[in-house]
Amino acid sequence: MTARPAPADPAHHDAPVLAVDVGGTKVEAALVDAAGQVLPGTRVRVPTGPASAASANAFSQALAEAVAAVRGHALAAGVRQIGVGAAGPVDLMAGTISPLNLPAVREFDIVGALRGMSGLEDVRLRLDGTCIALAELWKGAAQGVSNAIVFVVSTGIGGGVVADGRVVTGASGNAGHLGQLIVDRVSGDDVAAATAEGQASGRNAVEWARRQGWPGTSGEELARDYARGKTLAVRAVERSASALGRGLANVAVLLDTELAIMGGGFSFVTEDYPAMVERAAHAHSVNAYARKLRVTRAALGGDAPLVGAAAQVLREDLLG
Amino acid sequence: MTARPAPADPAHHDAPVLAVDVGGTKVEAALVDAAGQVLPGTRVRVPTGPASAASANAFSQALAEAVAAVRGHALAAGVRQIGVGAAGPVDLMAGTISPLNLPAVREFDIVGALRGMSGLEDVRLRLDGTCIALAELWKGAAQGVSNAIVFVVSTGIGGGVVADGRVVTGASGNAGHLGQLIVDRVSGDDVAAATAEGQASGRNAVEWARRQGWPGTSGEELARDYARGKTLAVRAVERSASALGRGLANVAVLLDTELAIMGGGFSFVTEDYPAMVERAAHAHSVNAYARKLRVTRAALGGDAPLVGAAAQVLREDLLG
Repeated sequence: MTARPAPADPAHHDAPVLAVDVGGTKVEAALVDAAGQVLPGTRVRVPTGPASAASANAFSQALAEAVAAVRGHALAAGVRQIGVGAAGPVDLMAGTISPLNLPAVREFDIVGALRGMSGLEDVRLRLDGTCIALAELWKGAAQGVSNAIVFVVSTGIGGGVVADGRVVTGASGNAGHLGQLIVDRVSGDDVAAATAEGQASGRNAVEWARRQGWPGTSGEELARDYARGKTLAVRAVERSASALGRGLANVAVLLDTELAIMGGGFSFVTEDYPAMVERAAHAHSVNAYARKLRVTRAALGGDAPLVGAAAQVLREDLLG
Repeated sequence: MTARPAPADPAHHDAPVLAVDVGGTKVEAALVDAAGQVLPGTRVRVPTGPASAASANAFSQALAEAVAAVRGHALAAGVRQIGVGAAGPVDLMAGTISPLNLPAVREFDIVGALRGMSGLEDVRLRLDGTCIALAELWKGAAQGVSNAIVFVVSTGIGGGVVADGRVVTGASGNAGHLGQLIVDRVSGDDVAAATAEGQASGRNAVEWARRQGWPGTSGEELARDYARGKTLAVRAVERSASALGRGLANVAVLLDTELAIMGGGFSFVTEDYPAMVERAAHAHSVNAYARKLRVTRAALGGDAPLVGAAAQVLREDLLG
């Protein structure tokens, strides 16, 4: 373990950072201070909605609106840097994003756009999953942990990987896609059905239960029926936990990971879902060291994406 | 990407390093100079053999014999540091090894033993797979590549992971077990049969072919019959390449890995085995970025474990 380099320019880090989070349905922005706190009264949320799904221009307007709303605070606070986290895939070399849930937004030059909108040259971009891992490593459940995976179980399953004390970026910036790990037999060309996300995500657990004859339509109904002990709901949740556990076993075996940190709406389908997932991970780990993996819940709430976006500047020592 | 710290004590690095490689059947030792060359005439190999499999004491004697054979060279060259790579699992906190292929050697204090045998205090320990990844990153096929996996396809399948320019150690030192990734449906408790190694390793490819009725007994015979187009041999090699490709797809999806570097005897079962594996990896990658993975052969030969063991000292900037 080598000593970590000091941040490149500590003088900048007294000022807050303008943090931007691009999700599939909204853009958020806020100022985050050097202590990792979202400054009260600076947070804005602009829905991208179906209109922006229809054009890159509408998305760009939503982004500009979010930046404009925070720009006055930023000028007053002496902000000189922007950190942006975005739904993937991203291309860090090009500085572009192509979020899956915004099909009209392809190879969008978000770094260039934010420079133009803000007048600030120093814009850092990472995947949203990388940002939540940075946030949990800096201020949350991964503090002091050198090898971890931080992820969200929701419509999809994605996150970021901490290896030897740093969050992994990867060749193009897309490391962390836990959900796309193969955990079952692949039938024909349908790889997605054999992945952790294909069996464990909220959407896919609900769809699987419906195919078995369960009459509900949402994760909330699945949680309710699980609590009532309804057979198909119980089987769907167990199947989800097992697939996610196999994905985490793969991570722990490959990276000797000690902690898995889980957020996202579907992780609350039952209180003991993390414990179920941990048992499945241990049962599917060939190597003894991988059975030391603990599975726990995220410590940060809705601030994590913005805190992590700002951490690209404020804690660049935590990035690979 | 932050700047890398300089090596902690460059003065040490003018002297060669005493490198030790502990495998399942032998101990090797040599001096490796600051340029990463094994110094001619310094390399020794001591078989551990069935005797040492029977006792930790016999293993310790083989280790002492290897160190004693190099010690004169080491004193003359001003060596002050030892780097040792060992078959896993390892426990870096305890400084111990428990090699799977040496069942009598359990929680063996190799760091303490090498200190006693050599009189040198500075002993660095890493998994053998970590060392070959260090070697390929420093002097081989991974030079200049920030995200790679380096591995051996032999009786087993293991290696080391390069993430954002550094070789990953993991919580206890065991990162890199590509072979234990789940790539198929798990039947009952037999997780191993659903892993990359369980289907792709030389031993398991031969055993699978035999169960189908193939009359051969070795990887060499399988290679010969594959070259002749014998159906069962062709199916066994294709099955191996597919399973390994699914394992690499999991790595590329999780870590956004750009290069997979393959060594080991079974990787030569056919000249185009790396190309077969690459096709399988691409076919099983849900994410487009993961289909950029290239699969190639290792550049370093039998020196890699010793060069990598020494790299723990000589290129500690390449370690996480």
